[in-house]
Amino acid sequence: MALLVQKYGGTSVGSVERIEAVADRVQKHKEKGDDIVVAVSAMSGETNRLIALAKAIQEEPDPREMDVLVSTGEQVTIALLCMALKKRGIDARSYTGAQVRIETDSSFGKARIQSIDTEGMRADLDKGRVVVVAGFQGADAEGNITTLGRGGSDTTGVALAAALKADECQIYTDVDGVYTTDPRVVDSARRLKKITFEEMLEMASLGSKILQIRSVEFAGKYQVPLRVLSSFEDGEGTLITTEGSEGMEQPAVSGIAFNRDEAKLTLKGVPDIPGIASRILVPVSDANIEVDMIVQNVSADGTTDFTFTVHRNEFNKALELLENVKDELGARDVIGDAKIAKVSIVGVGMRSHAGVASMMFKALAEESINIQLISTSEIKVSVIIDEKYMELAVRALHSAFKLSDKAHGISEA
Amino acid sequence: MALLVQKYGGTSVGSVERIEAVADRVQKHKEKGDDIVVAVSAMSGETNRLIALAKAIQEEPDPREMDVLVSTGEQVTIALLCMALKKRGIDARSYTGAQVRIETDSSFGKARIQSIDTEGMRADLDKGRVVVVAGFQGADAEGNITTLGRGGSDTTGVALAAALKADECQIYTDVDGVYTTDPRVVDSARRLKKITFEEMLEMASLGSKILQIRSVEFAGKYQVPLRVLSSFEDGEGTLITTEGSEGMEQPAVSGIAFNRDEAKLTLKGVPDIPGIASRILVPVSDANIEVDMIVQNVSADGTTDFTFTVHRNEFNKALELLENVKDELGARDVIGDAKIAKVSIVGVGMRSHAGVASMMFKALAEESINIQLISTSEIKVSVIIDEKYMELAVRALHSAFKLSDKAHGISEA
Repeated sequence: MALLVQKYGGTSVGSVERIEAVADRVQKHKEKGDDIVVAVSAMSGETNRLIALAKAIQEEPDPREMDVLVSTGEQVTIALLCMALKKRGIDARSYTGAQVRIETDSSFGKARIQSIDTEGMRADLDKGRVVVVAGFQGADAEGNITTLGRGGSDTTGVALAAALKADECQIYTDVDGVYTTDPRVVDSARRLKKITFEEMLEMASLGSKILQIRSVEFAGKYQVPLRVLSSFEDGEGTLITTEGSEGMEQPAVSGIAFNRDEAKLTLKGVPDIPGIASRILVPVSDANIEVDMIVQNVSADGTTDFTFTVHRNEFNKALELLENVKDELGARDVIGDAKIAKVSIVGVGMRSHAGVASMMFKALAEESINIQLISTSEIKVSVIIDEKYMELAVRALHSAFKLSDKAHGISEA
Repeated sequence: MALLVQKYGGTSVGSVERIEAVADRVQKHKEKGDDIVVAVSAMSGETNRLIALAKAIQEEPDPREMDVLVSTGEQVTIALLCMALKKRGIDARSYTGAQVRIETDSSFGKARIQSIDTEGMRADLDKGRVVVVAGFQGADAEGNITTLGRGGSDTTGVALAAALKADECQIYTDVDGVYTTDPRVVDSARRLKKITFEEMLEMASLGSKILQIRSVEFAGKYQVPLRVLSSFEDGEGTLITTEGSEGMEQPAVSGIAFNRDEAKLTLKGVPDIPGIASRILVPVSDANIEVDMIVQNVSADGTTDFTFTVHRNEFNKALELLENVKDELGARDVIGDAKIAKVSIVGVGMRSHAGVASMMFKALAEESINIQLISTSEIKVSVIIDEKYMELAVRALHSAFKLSDKAHGISEA
């Protein structure tokens, strides 16, 4: 008998039929003897409908009232799911974020959870009830309704699991797990049975938009085993857990992430003097432009080239900013390129495996793909290449690291 | 400077445009220096949409979860109205029933208000804020969301006005006041400037469906001056208040109410013995059939005729019941008639004016309308007639009591 927190996203509860399917799934677990706490999102489309109503009135809706408004979306779902459970003879009880006392700070629209009172939920579970909690929302110390921001239902699920010390937090979504890479790009992409929190963070932030980064961080911090599953079909999904829980040795690379959302900017020939990097980047961050990769190579002749990447939507804005400060910084030139892609290999096994990066570079070279930028962390290596080679690069790397091959998966033990 | 509680119903907040119009109206009052607390219903159609979702899952939805579900309707409205007020530079704050601490019993779907905590509202009003409260809802002592049942937003408005000792509770609706009778039947029907709580109760229960009976009772009990106004046009509406507040003498009759929702049943020739009335009516009420008028005349030959009216929808069920108990009761016959109408004259002035009833009967006789049943209370006389004469009877009575004539209105002082 396990205590499971199950989170169902918007498409998983997108219609009366889908809600009935969720109830069937909860019933199955309940009949196995598990205790179940469910966190749900708003029915798909509902949040956007509410936002449109608000925007019809106020272009920038009042944040407090916006949370009062959009929090109704999940409230509808919890009631409907409880009805579907009761119809199946399962005792269930719904709670809004405020009712279950998910206390947050007062940052409307992007509140952070401070504490969760588990007493009421425990009492319900002891009575054999399924507890159904509205995701994405809470209340501040004064009782004002707050929301955790987009994707916040994942965070609710993880936070409930952490507070209740649940055996597992199951995130039901429209994909059946985390893959070695995007199956739409690589046919032989394989679902991972296990992945570490760190790997998942790198995969998520690099473009595999299955889980919200915040919920993965949260799960890692509180060591809540997280499982990504499909709500449309049965299957084991992918378990995201702490490193080294497997008996088998780690493979070097677990997955390939990629995206073409970025653009690159280079200031050529800036004086190689202390403080130059911040003098370049402060105006960029002051303009609320987020910078991803930053690369500066060793200098020649007292000058250096300084390159960074931003979201493609911000490319023109960033380019203009650099043009304005170019002379002041004493730079020779500003160049930019929006037709780039970032491809990364991710894996905790990299830490102990030498030669992973060189194997990556070799695989790309064999396809005659030129590497424009390189950036590394402990568990990933990212390169920037011409965007037209992106799919080719992903397929080459997937094959080079034998990711299609079951025998090589850390996660296949 | 007055403290006003304004209640806006579903059609008054039925669209973004209507909500903007409500905000305009609130602004006008605010600029006059009034303190405003607003209670709102769900946008028209929304409650039915939510009920349909629930019924698609459970034929008889779980009552607790039903309240969680439908209470989102008003929550959407309070947020949107606050946004519209903020857009106009008016500080406003929304509260759900639970947030403003409208504490109710735990009768889901038909909860009754136990207490309202006014401290928070007072603090907001002191800061110059408009307080916007979700009508129709509250929370029980355990924090479960409850609803007051259909039309409950009126009750919320009155309860807020009573708790805050407001100067007036203004109920905005789609009619511009209470009329001497239905203007669709009598062209010269006139809006009353004033009417007493008792008259309004009789008018409401007799078919003038402007206000929920419960909210009028509530207003009368706590002496909250109630005003019915149109949210679509400007005007004074009708003030519902305690008797005798006018300087002028009361006219005999204030209005004519009518309906054709009833059917009549008669047990002929029942033995005139003690207990017979209850032996007839107990099986009727056991079957959850509500009885309106009950008439029993003096007996002849030791037997009597016993007549009562029920809602027309219950006619066949009631007839069948009586057929079943007829022999047991020793009755001679059961007859019924669903083609009837009830017409009533209402007025507190009746108390001190002799001859009001006979004037009514004379007016009907002059039109050759046969009276089938008569029932009276202190401030009304009701008759049952053939339904085909209903409009004729209403017009005849409206004219006989000179209700079109301004000089005669109690309420026109």
